Amino acid sequence: MEWINQKNVLIVGLGLMGGSYARALSRLGFHVMALDKNKESILFAKQQHIIEEGDWKEDSVLLEQADSIIIALYPGIVVKWVQEHQDKIKSGAFITDVTGVKEPVVYKVQEILREDLEFIAAHPMAGREVYGVENSDDKIFRDANYIVVPTEKNTREAILWCENLGRVLGFRKVSILTPKEHDDMIAYVSQLTHCIAVALMTGCDKEHVVDYTGDSFRDLTRIANINEDMWSELFLMNKEPLLQEMTYFIDEMNEIKGLIEEDKVEELKEKMRLSTVRRSRFNK
Amino acid sequence: MEWINQKNVLIVGLGLMGGSYARALSRLGFHVMALDKNKESILFAKQQHIIEEGDWKEDSVLLEQADSIIIALYPGIVVKWVQEHQDKIKSGAFITDVTGVKEPVVYKVQEILREDLEFIAAHPMAGREVYGVENSDDKIFRDANYIVVPTEKNTREAILWCENLGRVLGFRKVSILTPKEHDDMIAYVSQLTHCIAVALMTGCDKEHVVDYTGDSFRDLTRIANINEDMWSELFLMNKEPLLQEMTYFIDEMNEIKGLIEEDKVEELKEKMRLSTVRRSRFNK
Repeated sequence: MEWINQKNVLIVGLGLMGGSYARALSRLGFHVMALDKNKESILFAKQQHIIEEGDWKEDSVLLEQADSIIIALYPGIVVKWVQEHQDKIKSGAFITDVTGVKEPVVYKVQEILREDLEFIAAHPMAGREVYGVENSDDKIFRDANYIVVPTEKNTREAILWCENLGRVLGFRKVSILTPKEHDDMIAYVSQLTHCIAVALMTGCDKEHVVDYTGDSFRDLTRIANINEDMWSELFLMNKEPLLQEMTYFIDEMNEIKGLIEEDKVEELKEKMRLSTVRRSRFNK
Repeated sequence: MEWINQKNVLIVGLGLMGGSYARALSRLGFHVMALDKNKESILFAKQQHIIEEGDWKEDSVLLEQADSIIIALYPGIVVKWVQEHQDKIKSGAFITDVTGVKEPVVYKVQEILREDLEFIAAHPMAGREVYGVENSDDKIFRDANYIVVPTEKNTREAILWCENLGRVLGFRKVSILTPKEHDDMIAYVSQLTHCIAVALMTGCDKEHVVDYTGDSFRDLTRIANINEDMWSELFLMNKEPLLQEMTYFIDEMNEIKGLIEEDKVEELKEKMRLSTVRRSRFNK
């Protein structure tokens, strides 16, 4: 492991996720630096000792000092950031990200990246319904999954470094998926569920039922409070897998609707039994 | 209030809900009796002091002793039970229920009921994903809504009695709705969400993603663990309002799918903004 030689960590984009990484890594004794175009975020984080150094200027010298770089920007601007800044990065540095979609990001970054740098993708499956470094909190990692998403271009060394990063950040579980496996999985467990929560809220105006919502309804729609800039990017970048999952789901809703319409009570019960069996696997 | 004259409470159907009522009412000093065709449930409840008296025979004398009766049976058999047992009930008794669908139950019961008895419908919006008196627990009422569902046939006295029952049981909020308002509301906040959870589980087999599910996904599918006998009855008894809500929801999912297909990022963001605004009302 290269932990001794990876003392200087640079976080690019100091929002909720970047700030949460910074808090965990600072506490672990890393020399944490950050870049963010928002001057207030940098000043706040320095004052709170979330980072040791920071800069809001594009051509910061911090890029040259980092042994490893965590890109915590919105998914749509990761490739562009690498393109515009890689000439300043220290030779041999490991670069990782926090992006929720992998195929459209990983291959492009690896294609354009300098030979002496290595990009190893990761997805910390954690979040909150609030934004900014002010709300950052590495406790969000405790019950969450961290997924390392290597390609054939990655070295064993970088993969191990990235897995170890997930562990020291405090994630409950660290696993490895290919970019395609990751994107198919995330379309189902995360993006489809966010679409459902939005559709439940936007499908018709039910203000008068607010008083009667129980736990189930609140659980189901908690994620309807959604960051439209980030999630519209994620949806469109993962278009094909998400559309596939939406189609499966809508077809199934129509099938259940048909069973109700035609009073097919036995088939309806069969669906519910299957649902109960499958859901029970999640509690193991 | 008639609390002094309502000392003897009979619970018909001693499952999770009946048992939870029994626990709360026994602790409050009522003389709680129960009928259930399952002998073990009655013996267990007596042994645990959840009830004072109980019977598993159809023609029990307890019917004659009750000042008020809580029917905690499956929705489909409430009318039949009243039809078959009302001749034994003490004159002047109040009868209520716990049924999750109201229009198909309330009007029929009130139509056939003896003149000297009064049926006042209620829906305790509480539950657990486990069954039976062994799992009963009146803590489930604490954060839940209790809805009294009167018709023009109900007296002010019975409505007040039923509201008070909800309060002494420990519900967070007691409110009043008409049968139609109740059934439309429940189709949206409860039945539609259960359909969604089932469809997420049955739409395609995703066993391999179990390891990657986060909190959102688990929250959304907790209710996919579903009692097929009770919920198929509820769905079919509330067919029209539920089909209406399913149609609204499926149409909206198709609309969001169309926006993603055609890269309509601004319209997609607009949906998410509306979703966030509407969801925020729930947190007031």
